[in-house]
Amino acid sequence: MNPHLAIVGATGAVGTELCRIVDERGLSDWRISLLASARSRGRRLRVGGREIEVKALDVRSFEGVDYAIFSAGGERSRTFAPIAAEAGAVVIDNSSTFRMQPDVPLVIPEINPQDLREHSGIIANPNCSTIVMNMAVWPLHKVNPVRRIVVSTYQAASGAGAAAMAELRTQTAAQLEGRPISPSIFPHPIAFNLFSHNTPIGSDGYNTEERKMIDETRKIFHEGALAITATCIRVPVLRAHSESINLTFSRPITAEEVREILADAPGVKIVDDVEGGRFPMPIDASGKDDVLVGRIRGDLSQPEGRGIEMFVCGDQLRKGAALNAVQILERLIG
Amino acid sequence: MNPHLAIVGATGAVGTELCRIVDERGLSDWRISLLASARSRGRRLRVGGREIEVKALDVRSFEGVDYAIFSAGGERSRTFAPIAAEAGAVVIDNSSTFRMQPDVPLVIPEINPQDLREHSGIIANPNCSTIVMNMAVWPLHKVNPVRRIVVSTYQAASGAGAAAMAELRTQTAAQLEGRPISPSIFPHPIAFNLFSHNTPIGSDGYNTEERKMIDETRKIFHEGALAITATCIRVPVLRAHSESINLTFSRPITAEEVREILADAPGVKIVDDVEGGRFPMPIDASGKDDVLVGRIRGDLSQPEGRGIEMFVCGDQLRKGAALNAVQILERLIG
Repeated sequence: MNPHLAIVGATGAVGTELCRIVDERGLSDWRISLLASARSRGRRLRVGGREIEVKALDVRSFEGVDYAIFSAGGERSRTFAPIAAEAGAVVIDNSSTFRMQPDVPLVIPEINPQDLREHSGIIANPNCSTIVMNMAVWPLHKVNPVRRIVVSTYQAASGAGAAAMAELRTQTAAQLEGRPISPSIFPHPIAFNLFSHNTPIGSDGYNTEERKMIDETRKIFHEGALAITATCIRVPVLRAHSESINLTFSRPITAEEVREILADAPGVKIVDDVEGGRFPMPIDASGKDDVLVGRIRGDLSQPEGRGIEMFVCGDQLRKGAALNAVQILERLIG
Repeated sequence: MNPHLAIVGATGAVGTELCRIVDERGLSDWRISLLASARSRGRRLRVGGREIEVKALDVRSFEGVDYAIFSAGGERSRTFAPIAAEAGAVVIDNSSTFRMQPDVPLVIPEINPQDLREHSGIIANPNCSTIVMNMAVWPLHKVNPVRRIVVSTYQAASGAGAAAMAELRTQTAAQLEGRPISPSIFPHPIAFNLFSHNTPIGSDGYNTEERKMIDETRKIFHEGALAITATCIRVPVLRAHSESINLTFSRPITAEEVREILADAPGVKIVDDVEGGRFPMPIDASGKDDVLVGRIRGDLSQPEGRGIEMFVCGDQLRKGAALNAVQILERLIG
């Protein structure tokens, strides 16, 4: 008998992508429950050839469920993920709620699949910006350990959900027509503007998104003291995150070596056509599984040859969220 | 008798701003010639209380001219700036043509006004991204010499001129309405997208915009070997450039010290309201003279306390171009 998969938050931006990826990856003949808040109850979503009715999430939603992927926000994960695990489901959670708990594996399957061996019913999917960065950095780190990462992000509206993507569109249309705009999802205008990622800022001056990139990378890499600094910025792009990454390695490394290593890295695609002027762009990364890497060059400010600059783009909803979760699921069943 | 000022490229994005700033700074009673290409001949632009007719730029445009501000692209500067200087005008040139010539001062008045003392008739206005960065970094460098700069830019469409700003608007409108888009000014779609700055890339992998930030900063700071690396990215913002700047200083420095130094720096405004969630944004910097600085924090990846992170925004057309040129003019006459 096929396993039973529950998708919690099925009607959201990540949930919609999950329904698509479950089909693409050949899992659409599983028994599938689509769960969401009460106001989405009764909506019908397509998963492969089937239309499946959305049910309201409640404490009995997980009876008989083998795997549950949560993408319904931190609060719902906090309440319902332990209930699902208690009912016997293995939870793959997209929220940040459990990521830093020692007994919760935080996994990018291309990097640390071995961490899936021990869990207590909940597995965490990393932050989207973290995944995009780690996909490009890990293959290099394995060969020549990274000593320091300086990253600046260009994050799409999709990271704040489907409503944020809609806000970017409607607000931009209003601005073009000279109508007044009134931000509701984002705290600041997003049309033709950008702003510091609007997560709370700690006493060290870093916001939560930046702390996630630091702390989660250390956990995924099993490098508890890796020097990382991040600046996270929201830009008026719909759905792929971009990142400018500056690296310092243990030993000298050339741009050519980086290209050779990344050419063989799963889930990474080099887009670095100097002649044709083609480098990673969010519109090219959108809807794609691979993280695009380009502008690979030796860092002129590190004359000892241990520095590399690169620019990456990755679909925040796919590899940054839904695809990574399904890949974790595939590792669990495989 | 009032001096005679020529504005070359008067109908462009920077030229339009120059007409405004000349009036704001009390120079509108000067004798003013507005020069542009033949197709703009006869257009009338307002400078202060006057309407001035645009004349076509030719080899005799500079007879009797005391000062000429050029913002008409590199090719026109290459041809006509020497002609203007030969005719006795002091040229302030916004293009990159002469910036790195040893006998041409490259000046940000708040930083190196002393370099204006010796020139051969041509003074260069730095690149917009360079000015925005240097305004925030120089006051700190004076107190505690900077050892390394890692910068990633978020550059507005305005840097590519008025037509590029129009393209951002029309292309975004087309995309929202589902009409096909066909980039003409930029080589890639700019609506809801971003891309590596489309200047030529050298054998070291850096593009011209990045090289400008490196080479010009070294010249302006009189620090020929300062370690700088830059990644320059064009974003769908209309007119202010943003930059994520990571600094390494000679000695330990705290975020509080940085704030104290920048609070007294001319042309810099600290916007760093953690409680209110207010940091530098391009829409707030647009049309303003000051470079906004925020997200000031000690860099967690430099545990010895010599690292600072900050995020800055500056109006690319004003301090990044027109205002800086007029400030150079003011130093020359004052």
